[in-house]
Amino acid sequence: MAANALDTIMLLGDSITQYGWEQGGFIQRLAHLYARKLDVINRGLSGYNTEWAIPVFEQCFAKKEAQPYVPKVKLLTIWFGANDACLPNRDQYVSIPRFIENLHTMISMVREPSSDWYSPTTRIILLTPPPVNVAVRAALIAPREMDRTADQTKAYADAVIKAGEEARVPVVDLWTKLWEKAGETEEGLKKYLKDGLHLNAEGYEIVFDQLIEAISKHFPELHYDRLPQVFTHWDTISLENPRASLKSQRVDV
Amino acid sequence: MAANALDTIMLLGDSITQYGWEQGGFIQRLAHLYARKLDVINRGLSGYNTEWAIPVFEQCFAKKEAQPYVPKVKLLTIWFGANDACLPNRDQYVSIPRFIENLHTMISMVREPSSDWYSPTTRIILLTPPPVNVAVRAALIAPREMDRTADQTKAYADAVIKAGEEARVPVVDLWTKLWEKAGETEEGLKKYLKDGLHLNAEGYEIVFDQLIEAISKHFPELHYDRLPQVFTHWDTISLENPRASLKSQRVDV
Repeated sequence: MAANALDTIMLLGDSITQYGWEQGGFIQRLAHLYARKLDVINRGLSGYNTEWAIPVFEQCFAKKEAQPYVPKVKLLTIWFGANDACLPNRDQYVSIPRFIENLHTMISMVREPSSDWYSPTTRIILLTPPPVNVAVRAALIAPREMDRTADQTKAYADAVIKAGEEARVPVVDLWTKLWEKAGETEEGLKKYLKDGLHLNAEGYEIVFDQLIEAISKHFPELHYDRLPQVFTHWDTISLENPRASLKSQRVDV
Repeated sequence: MAANALDTIMLLGDSITQYGWEQGGFIQRLAHLYARKLDVINRGLSGYNTEWAIPVFEQCFAKKEAQPYVPKVKLLTIWFGANDACLPNRDQYVSIPRFIENLHTMISMVREPSSDWYSPTTRIILLTPPPVNVAVRAALIAPREMDRTADQTKAYADAVIKAGEEARVPVVDLWTKLWEKAGETEEGLKKYLKDGLHLNAEGYEIVFDQLIEAISKHFPELHYDRLPQVFTHWDTISLENPRASLKSQRVDV
């Protein structure tokens, strides 16, 4: 059994989070830099929208009674919109008002003292979905009809920003950052998207950089440079009494 | 707080395990393929030998009283020897008899019904340390005196095999596999070692392949192709009653 040895970063989202374990993915990069400091938990669910994510999140985030036994989630990222923004005739579609409501539901689960999942030490960051390269994706899924538009996804990115402002949760506006980096052209997005929808390693590098920037700005105590290794560096182990120097140095932030 | 949502693979070892989160590292590859099936927990400790790892392992593996609340470790890899095999005048040195004893101690912690850490459903795999490229490492750490020899590390690889045979635990003999791949020359090792001691992505690819081969042979029920996603694929979600189809499908193996 895995003991409650390290606190964690939990990444909740859709396929763009799930694939964060790829080589150069943002979760792979986080895991490498936070090694021996915070464990990284990927709760990305390919194809999911916010409506379907809520029942899963209820099972992935611990309720109060289990909290003494399980790792703390120091940082939670919530990153949806890529599927919610499908066209209304698709199963994955969620309307913008409902999308915003669902984001608030997830945030309130963690933040409201009356919630079964209340966790006052968990910091939250929202991310906006990346821009879609419609030409590339349409070609890939043809002859099936195209399922997304560039404007629709932009509207969901704006909705994430709105939800973040309303709930006072920091937002990494990845949509805008990627669009700027792409020179505000679909063609330019090819550098960052591998199939018009999902990020490649260069796209994920931007996600990672933006996330670390947000951590530095809003929750600097959670930057990897500020956190100690939970088990000491080997050259500080006492040779006379190693066991004494090998106790967990985990501290509550 | 992170709920007990997915079971896990725990990787216990030294720096060669810790750096497994690098791009192309064996843990990154495992995490990607086991996404939504098993979480992957990196308990690699740069510089550590088996002597120092035991007190840490006691804190990372759950004792019986916590076990109802924490994720099961379905698979545990134990991979040491690279530091234990330092020359006897170094702090990291552990004698071969003691090294073997320490491996048995870790295995018995998990396997012995009388142990506080007893976990009968945890499968164990041992790995042997990779061969050292003495010329490369000696040049890198000069003018400090060289700390390892090729023969010494080979003797610790043999010791892991011996411990595995005695305890009837499968062993991934990485030393032999890498040495063969290198054409049995130090020069050939350059393809797999980045600094004479630690693996690069090509070296880690071999570790990954060998580990999956050992899983397929000894614990096929734990191969990623045999495990279901804990939360269902999005296109099987019931649109009439999504919540009902979004219950965890975790099963005890």
